[in-house]
Amino acid sequence: MEPYYHKVSYYETDRMGVTHHSNYIRWMEEARVDYLNKIGVSYARLEEEGLVSPVVGLSCSYLRSTTFDDTVRIVVRLDSYRGVRFAFSYEMFLPDQPSPVFTASSTHCFLDQAGKPVMVRHNNPKLDALFKAQLKERRE
Amino acid sequence: MEPYYHKVSYYETDRMGVTHHSNYIRWMEEARVDYLNKIGVSYARLEEEGLVSPVVGLSCSYLRSTTFDDTVRIVVRLDSYRGVRFAFSYEMFLPDQPSPVFTASSTHCFLDQAGKPVMVRHNNPKLDALFKAQLKERRE
Amino acid sequence: MEPYYHKVSYYETDRMGVTHHSNYIRWMEEARVDYLNKIGVSYARLEEEGLVSPVVGLSCSYLRSTTFDDTVRIVVRLDSYRGVRFAFSYEMFLPDQPSPVFTASSTHCFLDQAGKPVMVRHNNPKLDALFKAQLKERRE
Amino acid sequence: MEPYYHKVSYYETDRMGVTHHSNYIRWMEEARVDYLNKIGVSYARLEEEGLVSPVVGLSCSYLRSTTFDDTVRIVVRLDSYRGVRFAFSYEMFLPDQPSPVFTASSTHCFLDQAGKPVMVRHNNPKLDALFKAQLKERRE
Repeated sequence: MEPYYHKVSYYETDRMGVTHHSNYIRWMEEARVDYLNKIGVSYARLEEEGLVSPVVGLSCSYLRSTTFDDTVRIVVRLDSYRGVRFAFSYEMFLPDQPSPVFTASSTHCFLDQAGKPVMVRHNNPKLDALFKAQLKERRE
Repeated sequence: MEPYYHKVSYYETDRMGVTHHSNYIRWMEEARVDYLNKIGVSYARLEEEGLVSPVVGLSCSYLRSTTFDDTVRIVVRLDSYRGVRFAFSYEMFLPDQPSPVFTASSTHCFLDQAGKPVMVRHNNPKLDALFKAQLKERRE
Repeated sequence: MEPYYHKVSYYETDRMGVTHHSNYIRWMEEARVDYLNKIGVSYARLEEEGLVSPVVGLSCSYLRSTTFDDTVRIVVRLDSYRGVRFAFSYEMFLPDQPSPVFTASSTHCFLDQAGKPVMVRHNNPKLDALFKAQLKERRE
Repeated sequence: MEPYYHKVSYYETDRMGVTHHSNYIRWMEEARVDYLNKIGVSYARLEEEGLVSPVVGLSCSYLRSTTFDDTVRIVVRLDSYRGVRFAFSYEMFLPDQPSPVFTASSTHCFLDQAGKPVMVRHNNPKLDALFKAQLKERRE
């Protein structure tokens, strides 16, 4: 799968001269939405169908800094998926650098509009199949 | 009326070493919500009642910079109110400085949840009276 | 010149369901940096050479809303340039819509690292020539 | 120690109707700066003295949502401090609710302006003493 690219904006830097650490959390979201698109899932459409998918946990390691004008390559993978929870991992890279600048994982669930947890395999069999296919591909 | 105070956060600075200009727009919103509270209007309650109040125009002058740890004093005034439109003006100051660091005005309207313009004096007579009292006070 | 495109992120929306108005200010910056790149000016390099270019004024009209997943087309033009000040105008569009969702202008100056205004035609003749060429092109 | 309070701004919500998850990371920073102030350390002064303190790791659990107009109480504690690394923990609460809405920890180091790790007890004995006093107080 093609990685996602984010070009660092000036407004994402802070007075240390580098990208403020909170923005990586936002890029994780951009890259996750892009990942879903690439496997055939529109997050906007999921919402229209009444599903939301909040973040329930995050874990991040900041390894090197980035700054304005850098193009950050973001590799996303579905790490686990069972029942109502699923998790992604992220690696972010600067061009031509083999070591990541940032690694992270995020855990999510699906909720309906009343805020109740949703079993994807009952509620959205197509999404369930796409997630299972991704996990299978990773194991192979 | 007591001014509103905003303490500049580190994440609001950029690599020029100063507050990024987009954050003043956000402080205008904070100060506007605080102003409404002080005249007896809860913006959260307005929303529950089905009113929203988008920004339709902004005009801003950046006169001096501010940075992390500065406490910015924000003076808000209702400048005009007629029919569906109303406008606020803003002046922001650093402590012990007579000249503002930033001045601005914003124009707003009220919409119902279908996105239709709302005449406040029909829809919300209490708010209409509060706005008129503010304008009257300014003129005196 | 090719327009700049910004895809609206989830984190750019607010609980009105649409893009928060402060983000358009940030997209103006993204589009301005992209415009400079397209005429041959790297803003990152200008900074390395000791020039910064703060915003001194903004004027914005919010005409329609945008939201998550929208791809916003942003047309930037250099509107004026004389001495130490220059101004850009912006029009933002949703796909296949002839009327803009947002229009704005921004005024800027150039400062050296001591915060002193800089005459671009003395300090950076290449940039001066590029700006004059853009203005000339617009008039023709 | 008095907790830190953050009132949720409208611009911090997203179209799910709740605070966007990235903002909690920013509130952690606000609360950390406030904590340092309360034990007698100005982060702005540390920077003037040539020290910066980037985030090297984060771990967050999102337990319940918050939204516009909520006043979030944030309890920060220094969890560990040895050599060049130190860690804080955070608990965030809504008024009158015994269970937190969010818990997290962050790990930091101190760097000099050249980006080299700094042993606080050599470079800044006053800060070293303050951190040790905090840890001792926690254990008692």
